[in-house]
Amino acid sequence: MTSSKRRRPTVVDGDEAEADRKRILITMGDPGGIGPEVALAALADRELTGSHELVLVGERRVFDECAAALRLPQPGAVIESGERGARYEPGRPSTEGALAALDAIEGAASLCRSGDADAMVTSPVSKAAIAAAGVEFTGHTEHLAKLAGVTTPLMLFVAGPMRVALATTHLALRDVPAAITSDGLVECLLVLNDGLERLLGLPGPRIAVVSLNPHAGEGGRFGSEEERVIIPAIESARNEGIAVSGPHAADTIFCGLGDASCRLPGAAYDAALAMYHDQGVIPVKLAGFGGAVNVTLGLGIIRTSVDHGTAFSLAGRGEADAGSMKAAVRLAASMAARRSASERDSG
Amino acid sequence: MTSSKRRRPTVVDGDEAEADRKRILITMGDPGGIGPEVALAALADRELTGSHELVLVGERRVFDECAAALRLPQPGAVIESGERGARYEPGRPSTEGALAALDAIEGAASLCRSGDADAMVTSPVSKAAIAAAGVEFTGHTEHLAKLAGVTTPLMLFVAGPMRVALATTHLALRDVPAAITSDGLVECLLVLNDGLERLLGLPGPRIAVVSLNPHAGEGGRFGSEEERVIIPAIESARNEGIAVSGPHAADTIFCGLGDASCRLPGAAYDAALAMYHDQGVIPVKLAGFGGAVNVTLGLGIIRTSVDHGTAFSLAGRGEADAGSMKAAVRLAASMAARRSASERDSG
Repeated sequence: MTSSKRRRPTVVDGDEAEADRKRILITMGDPGGIGPEVALAALADRELTGSHELVLVGERRVFDECAAALRLPQPGAVIESGERGARYEPGRPSTEGALAALDAIEGAASLCRSGDADAMVTSPVSKAAIAAAGVEFTGHTEHLAKLAGVTTPLMLFVAGPMRVALATTHLALRDVPAAITSDGLVECLLVLNDGLERLLGLPGPRIAVVSLNPHAGEGGRFGSEEERVIIPAIESARNEGIAVSGPHAADTIFCGLGDASCRLPGAAYDAALAMYHDQGVIPVKLAGFGGAVNVTLGLGIIRTSVDHGTAFSLAGRGEADAGSMKAAVRLAASMAARRSASERDSG
Repeated sequence: MTSSKRRRPTVVDGDEAEADRKRILITMGDPGGIGPEVALAALADRELTGSHELVLVGERRVFDECAAALRLPQPGAVIESGERGARYEPGRPSTEGALAALDAIEGAASLCRSGDADAMVTSPVSKAAIAAAGVEFTGHTEHLAKLAGVTTPLMLFVAGPMRVALATTHLALRDVPAAITSDGLVECLLVLNDGLERLLGLPGPRIAVVSLNPHAGEGGRFGSEEERVIIPAIESARNEGIAVSGPHAADTIFCGLGDASCRLPGAAYDAALAMYHDQGVIPVKLAGFGGAVNVTLGLGIIRTSVDHGTAFSLAGRGEADAGSMKAAVRLAASMAARRSASERDSG
């Protein structure tokens, strides 16, 4: 990987403004999808580039051609994560494109791990194209966890005041009950509590644990997982000093979640831990379609992502909405700034 | 059961206004909950009583005392569904109260079946109190189905333009996959299509079937129920002439559902059939907390309900929001009017 990165400024005491200027990497995503264009749109946003150094990671040619076609400003620094010599067409998934997208993810993660960047923001990739290329890939979250040697990454969505983490992610609904264990939930709660506190600026966050079964199981009438698995996990997490409550009925706890200004059931909590993918992602997308940000906690590096897919049918037309990408960049930057502050405090 | 009902007006051709004045029963619900007060609030709403005849079903004494305590107008006609001679306190569930609530449901359903009323709207009951009284009761929907001798009632929620039906209702998440069968889904789709068309005024409704597994199963990578069960059901329903599509990924299909004015994924559909309780009720409550209406289709009578519970902690204070009750009454009345119109057309 060749890098066009500049020497990073040295942080000196009292130089808060410079310290808070973060180096944020944006991966290309699948070159046939809308990733390159939403990444370029973020780079063209003066408010973002005024506050932070945004650097694209991928193939320079892809970004240059996309910028020319859509009359977007040509990007400055691009970190080349590998030049595969293939031609990619907007709207067309391809094996080479899928592999190029993986190169960008791996390049960005490595720079974050070495401290050469403060955070990475990922553009969408095509799971089908990656599978066609013969690579096992369940999602960015799981892939980054494998690269980092981490077994329990935590997927967290942020949509305005709504923050929802997932105890399980990409698996069949049939397999969800067995995948939820007390130890696993406690681990999720520890990672979530740490992330909310240290990276999202919420000291002593109040976390609502969502029930697996309808009506919170109605005292065991609809399933026993609440009594057997979830309540013991909540008690253990409380013993670790975390402000956890629940299990709460899933149909009401997301109403007003994180919004202390309303009187809905979720208003009293800073975040929820959902038990499975759709339980958590349905409310997130309803609350913030196109503007939600996907965060991975527990990786040791800061990573955020858009909440949408490659949208091949939209690619190359200049119609893609960059709202989620910009929100993902802003959140990554603020998480990086908070991490620095907490390191300064503890250092 | 003693009844104070008046003789119903005879519908004559051309007398549309009179024909559309419907007789809507409102059940008391648990007398210790907020049912009596939201029912009285609906009766005090001139817009509702100007268009329809609203009649309370329950114990007159409960309504009279509630009206006096909260300075609401004393109710006119009350259909006594049984006088148990017990004293109920606001905020206090009781065995006698639970049984009185059941009396009201059974009385109202019987009057709807006999044609002495056009629709019933139910106030919340306490499942725990009913269980404590030794009666098996999973929910209003299932109870009314049993009274009607119907095996496949369909629970439908209406929250503004969002209409969501449930293929399965009150059971543990672990038991959901096995409870979903192709035949069962086809039955749900037939009942839903008929209800939307005949009672909700949506000719040729476009119905989105929601997937069971995340990302619509991603081509079999996350579960096989889409291929084995759901897709065959969609094909069968299409062969019956129903405009069904899917299975759609659950995290996006509810976005914009029923709202043709937006460009979100659900905008192209009039209703969705969700596979399980929380999948369908999470988006409904987010879209219309406090204003969603619960409808039971397939009973042979028209029944709507508030979307909230007994709220014992609020009862008797005059703070309960009657929005959902009023919406439930309006919807019941419009469904009854459409049923009459469709019967006139076909007669």
